[in-house]
Amino acid sequence: MRIVSNYNTLIIIISTLLIFISCAEDKVSSPTLSSSASEISNNAHPSLIITSAGVEKIKANLGSIPIFDASLEAVKNEVDTEIASGIEVPIPKDFSGGYTHTRHKKNFLILQKAGILYQILDDQKYAKYVRDMLFQYEAMYKTLPIHPQTRSYARGKLFWQCLNDSNWLVYVSQAYDCIYNYLTAEERETLEKNLFRPFADFISIENPQFYNRIHNHSTWGNAAVGMIGLVMNDEELIERALYGIKHDGLDPNAKDNDGGFIKSKDGKAGFIANLEEPFSPDGYYTEGPYYQRYAMYPFLIFAEGLQNVKPELKIFQHKDSVLLKSVDALLNLSDADGEFFPLNDGQKGMSYFSRELVTAVDIAYHYGGHHPGLLSIAEKQNNVLLDDSGLSVALGLKNGEAKPFNKKSINLSDGSDGKQGGVGILRYGNEDMTLVFKYAAQGLSHGHYDKLSFSLYEKGDEILQDYGLVRFVNIEQKGGGNYLQANSSWAKQTIAHNTLIQNETSHFEGKYEIGSKHFSELYLFDVANEAIQVVSAKENNAYPGTQMQRTLVMIKDENFEKPYVLDLMQVTSNTTNQYDLPYYFMGQVIKTNVDYKTHQTLKKLGGANGYEHLYVEGIGNASEENTKLSWLNHGNFYSLTSATNKADQILFTRIGANDPEFNLRRDAGFMIRRKNSKNTVFASTIESHGSYSPVSEFALNSNSNIADLEVVFSSEEYMGISITDLNGSTRLFIMSNKDASKEKNHTIKINNIMHQWTGAYYFK
Amino acid sequence: MRIVSNYNTLIIIISTLLIFISCAEDKVSSPTLSSSASEISNNAHPSLIITSAGVEKIKANLGSIPIFDASLEAVKNEVDTEIASGIEVPIPKDFSGGYTHTRHKKNFLILQKAGILYQILDDQKYAKYVRDMLFQYEAMYKTLPIHPQTRSYARGKLFWQCLNDSNWLVYVSQAYDCIYNYLTAEERETLEKNLFRPFADFISIENPQFYNRIHNHSTWGNAAVGMIGLVMNDEELIERALYGIKHDGLDPNAKDNDGGFIKSKDGKAGFIANLEEPFSPDGYYTEGPYYQRYAMYPFLIFAEGLQNVKPELKIFQHKDSVLLKSVDALLNLSDADGEFFPLNDGQKGMSYFSRELVTAVDIAYHYGGHHPGLLSIAEKQNNVLLDDSGLSVALGLKNGEAKPFNKKSINLSDGSDGKQGGVGILRYGNEDMTLVFKYAAQGLSHGHYDKLSFSLYEKGDEILQDYGLVRFVNIEQKGGGNYLQANSSWAKQTIAHNTLIQNETSHFEGKYEIGSKHFSELYLFDVANEAIQVVSAKENNAYPGTQMQRTLVMIKDENFEKPYVLDLMQVTSNTTNQYDLPYYFMGQVIKTNVDYKTHQTLKKLGGANGYEHLYVEGIGNASEENTKLSWLNHGNFYSLTSATNKADQILFTRIGANDPEFNLRRDAGFMIRRKNSKNTVFASTIESHGSYSPVSEFALNSNSNIADLEVVFSSEEYMGISITDLNGSTRLFIMSNKDASKEKNHTIKINNIMHQWTGAYYFK
Repeated sequence: MRIVSNYNTLIIIISTLLIFISCAEDKVSSPTLSSSASEISNNAHPSLIITSAGVEKIKANLGSIPIFDASLEAVKNEVDTEIASGIEVPIPKDFSGGYTHTRHKKNFLILQKAGILYQILDDQKYAKYVRDMLFQYEAMYKTLPIHPQTRSYARGKLFWQCLNDSNWLVYVSQAYDCIYNYLTAEERETLEKNLFRPFADFISIENPQFYNRIHNHSTWGNAAVGMIGLVMNDEELIERALYGIKHDGLDPNAKDNDGGFIKSKDGKAGFIANLEEPFSPDGYYTEGPYYQRYAMYPFLIFAEGLQNVKPELKIFQHKDSVLLKSVDALLNLSDADGEFFPLNDGQKGMSYFSRELVTAVDIAYHYGGHHPGLLSIAEKQNNVLLDDSGLSVALGLKNGEAKPFNKKSINLSDGSDGKQGGVGILRYGNEDMTLVFKYAAQGLSHGHYDKLSFSLYEKGDEILQDYGLVRFVNIEQKGGGNYLQANSSWAKQTIAHNTLIQNETSHFEGKYEIGSKHFSELYLFDVANEAIQVVSAKENNAYPGTQMQRTLVMIKDENFEKPYVLDLMQVTSNTTNQYDLPYYFMGQVIKTNVDYKTHQTLKKLGGANGYEHLYVEGIGNASEENTKLSWLNHGNFYSLTSATNKADQILFTRIGANDPEFNLRRDAGFMIRRKNSKNTVFASTIESHGSYSPVSEFALNSNSNIADLEVVFSSEEYMGISITDLNGSTRLFIMSNKDASKEKNHTIKINNIMHQWTGAYYFK
Repeated sequence: MRIVSNYNTLIIIISTLLIFISCAEDKVSSPTLSSSASEISNNAHPSLIITSAGVEKIKANLGSIPIFDASLEAVKNEVDTEIASGIEVPIPKDFSGGYTHTRHKKNFLILQKAGILYQILDDQKYAKYVRDMLFQYEAMYKTLPIHPQTRSYARGKLFWQCLNDSNWLVYVSQAYDCIYNYLTAEERETLEKNLFRPFADFISIENPQFYNRIHNHSTWGNAAVGMIGLVMNDEELIERALYGIKHDGLDPNAKDNDGGFIKSKDGKAGFIANLEEPFSPDGYYTEGPYYQRYAMYPFLIFAEGLQNVKPELKIFQHKDSVLLKSVDALLNLSDADGEFFPLNDGQKGMSYFSRELVTAVDIAYHYGGHHPGLLSIAEKQNNVLLDDSGLSVALGLKNGEAKPFNKKSINLSDGSDGKQGGVGILRYGNEDMTLVFKYAAQGLSHGHYDKLSFSLYEKGDEILQDYGLVRFVNIEQKGGGNYLQANSSWAKQTIAHNTLIQNETSHFEGKYEIGSKHFSELYLFDVANEAIQVVSAKENNAYPGTQMQRTLVMIKDENFEKPYVLDLMQVTSNTTNQYDLPYYFMGQVIKTNVDYKTHQTLKKLGGANGYEHLYVEGIGNASEENTKLSWLNHGNFYSLTSATNKADQILFTRIGANDPEFNLRRDAGFMIRRKNSKNTVFASTIESHGSYSPVSEFALNSNSNIADLEVVFSSEEYMGISITDLNGSTRLFIMSNKDASKEKNHTIKINNIMHQWTGAYYFK
């Protein structure tokens, strides 16, 4: 042991010298870290996500903290099974979902767990397993060429893209930290020289187009380099992780596989820049919740490591504690089942039960002031990290400190300054109804062209869906588990969303260069009164010369069984256009008053911009007054009522045209088409009502309660809508379009009656 | 009270006289009931489903039997809410699902519950509520014309069909029994004279085409008449219930709305005949589980009443205890979620959580020897009847006597003699895989033309679906909640099922007259070895001149992760035909090796026999050797491998053509079409394998494990199939087609290798 310790000292000296040299070379001008502090704390291992003090505390509590004990047992079983089946480190070959991909992915997850088990259980078989596998990697990596699959803009070595190589290093750094003291100095030197350092250099210096971006890819890269840097006490790597590569030589016009720009506008890069840029002050991550979830892991795990090794950075307090806020934001971006809203490219079903969110919740609890609401999420997850933060959570739960995490109506601004639009969420009751309104920025390369779109939920069930992405993540048979062509041709297009399409063209012509310059503007977010919650935003750039304002109101009226949504889309244009407003309702048609025809053959709706993916199942003319559609889904009835005129066309659509490989779901749509129109208002309500059970076979309250919906006033300044229910009660909603201030007094005459009020809207 | 008692005596005397007169008139020759026994037991009220002794026992146990107390609390809340909202007895007007229909349905359910509450809680408000509502019905019924809706072959008065009127009387008889002693003799006389007796006569004597059949409709009618007869101690009604109307004057060729014959072949009618005829000795009900569930209620509730009032009938022992067996059969006809297999006309989602099954399970437990397996079902139902049998169950659960109800592989014969085909169910493990093979009789008017069809489940999820019915039961907007046109044009047709269609024509030309004369024949059912379970049946009449034999084998091979199914359809014909074999797989296509094309427009597959409801999404030629399709559903991968040749056409179909009102689900199909063929074998395997989670994003074992499937031998006598897995192991399955005996020795040479074995099949 003494020899090891001497070796350590030697290595520290060498490292320090190397840092000096490399700093000189790179001419890094970023804030200098206190190297003395680092040295002291870096002498201890483990120190990243589990600390020596933490290990002692865990050992002292073992057997008396149910959720921790259960998580430990599960991990132990998993790792023991893997150890029993032997180590496999295959030569890389496959895309996502293929054997070698899945194997290497499993390896890094198991390595991290085995490392932790070694610390907690003091059983050398785990350390040996980690060491043996690391040396197999070391043996292979020395001569490993770039991955044979050529699709990526940044090909990895173990995986087809650097992104997955970075995943590997983020996890394996933790394993290395855990068995650091188990290894001899010689072993460490071999691993660092032949595996870790070249690995870190490969994903960074050799792939600046991957590493030096403002993007979740780079965050993984930064964290990977930083994590191994912390374990190796390699200040050069830590600097590179925090502040990027100074001179990357990247082409400012280069794009990645998803069509996003590689180079950021101001040339900033590194972990700190990635923390600055894509997170809004509210903690919203511009790519959307699915990628926020993905990015959270490297953000939080590296932050945890930094907090433990370099507490002087105060990483969790950075940008007004944006990392902690982002966990709260992300939890609020889920439905009642904990599944994230599939804004932009998002795979449905991904939820706060994912391993990334176990990490996020535990770390946010441990480092963010022990908020008891997080404990109730951890309780649902029924799983904790086997480290200091997981212990914190387990003890909190054991002590009965959990309180419900109450998701609320919330407005999350987008953009690093919070001034690039956002996402507004209206919730009624205990998530009985949830509306998600997107008026955000483009969302980088994973963004969809769907300004002012919305989706609607009843508990965890979709009423009106956002399609999400077209990709079978990690299912190799489906395009190597990667994005499929229809992700661009369908999912990203405006027509795939519940928002307005002008002249069958997507917002910003579906062009990333244009879309990424713009964002919508919040006009009003007022949820003070639960019974009438309003969100409203304007979009002036999606179609030059056309202004859209959408106002969504969630109303709970005593004459209605459940809340309903009033949806107002006001369009003003210099030109005469065709406007399409689709609603992707989920479920089976129960009733409509549309006089429509169906055809013997199904034809596609259009030739481009996503229209080529829709079949027309039925077409007809709208009713003179109100067009109605009722449908049934998961035991609930829903009704859409829309103020239309006879010239409006109604289309029943079905997703799935031009889909030769059956990549699209055959879901239905209901679309209002208004031709030859300049300025107009689309006014609709969406009600949830009644229930149906195939067990009792009772159909309750299966009809819409709205007798009449009418646009009674429309000008540049005001919009007035009357809603009459089946009891004959009429409600009037008036919106001030130009002044949303709370103090402003308004007076207008509608149908010879004067209405006076203060504030942005009137409802009576 | 003494006056009441005198009135009772008087009424008994009058009743006895009336019976004497009516017996003389009807010349009933059925077994004479012991009137003295009846008189004695009929003096007591309540006596149908709850007895005086039972009431005392319930009262003594209240507060200490959790499930009973909870059920009581729930019923009390429901009834109290109804009492608070007042009595509504509207003039009948609507179809199923409409207001008046739903109201009257709710009334009879609540009346029954209120009656029970009166007995258990001794609170007169419940008796008063029942009395008051009954008198509102009495006042209305006196002058009530036949229901204004004209669609039924047997229109009711309260409802559009006598069937629902019978439902009403079955439930209301119980309510009347419960408050019998609360009413004055005068009140009883008024109700019986103006309401109950005319009601019973209307649904029987005035509607023999409804009442005097072998059909679930008639069972309801019989039970209704019998139940009120028991309460009124009216032997004429009881006789009519048990043995039908002697001279009904029905046309032997008349049909009902569903196309079924009204008159039974041997002219038998009444409850006993309905117990004889549609139930097989195994307790399978010929219409299928959905209707068995529906019919179980009147069967069991009337049997319970008879057992209590006329124990000398030994109704539960009738036909070797067929009623008790039928409960066991019905529970076995459900998937892992308790949902019934939708054979014939069946609504998906109907399950053993329905009120009818709570009744069935409780009664079967109480009167059938306290089988502990039934307690575990009752525990899942979390609800018991508030009567003697419910108390039995509650006490059994309280005493910890529940044992798992182990569903097993089971063969259920069809036909009153058990010789008209049947349904074979193969199960592996704990319902990990369940195969439902239908080789039954026509199933009366609710039967589908799908001889030798099968469906497949993994736990409660469908792998290959049976479409079920086309009907939105009780949803008024959908054709009055009744059967929709596509039930005949699609759901009943052969093409809607996973079985063979010759020349695009349904079995028996889709004609009920022909279909109801025939049934398939069981050839083999051998489930002795769980790892290789075989069911095989022959059908010689669906297409005259063509013989079909289908053999389904559920195999658990150690080289395979999960069980798989070997599906062999051997066809022999005098003529050259086109054979279609569809598989309605559930989920999304993951991979296929078919070289197919898709079209820009979707056209229907054919012009008639259900083909007009299918769109062709893709068409191509099969592979020379094995055609493969893999799909993903609810986190599991599935693969179909079929031995094909290049001349075989493969069609990707989509349900939904010719569906102008959106009544059909847009589900997918995969069809093998073999043209110009006489004798042939369709050999396929269906594997379940691997898993996918959108939370972990791990795709495990996502590929088929079958490298090659080959028909290596086919003659009239034998069929041989080789199955080679990815490891290179080859299994050989040989079926003896002519002799299924266990003792028979077989020897054949295949590919120059001799195979010898004893029994119907060889597998090695």
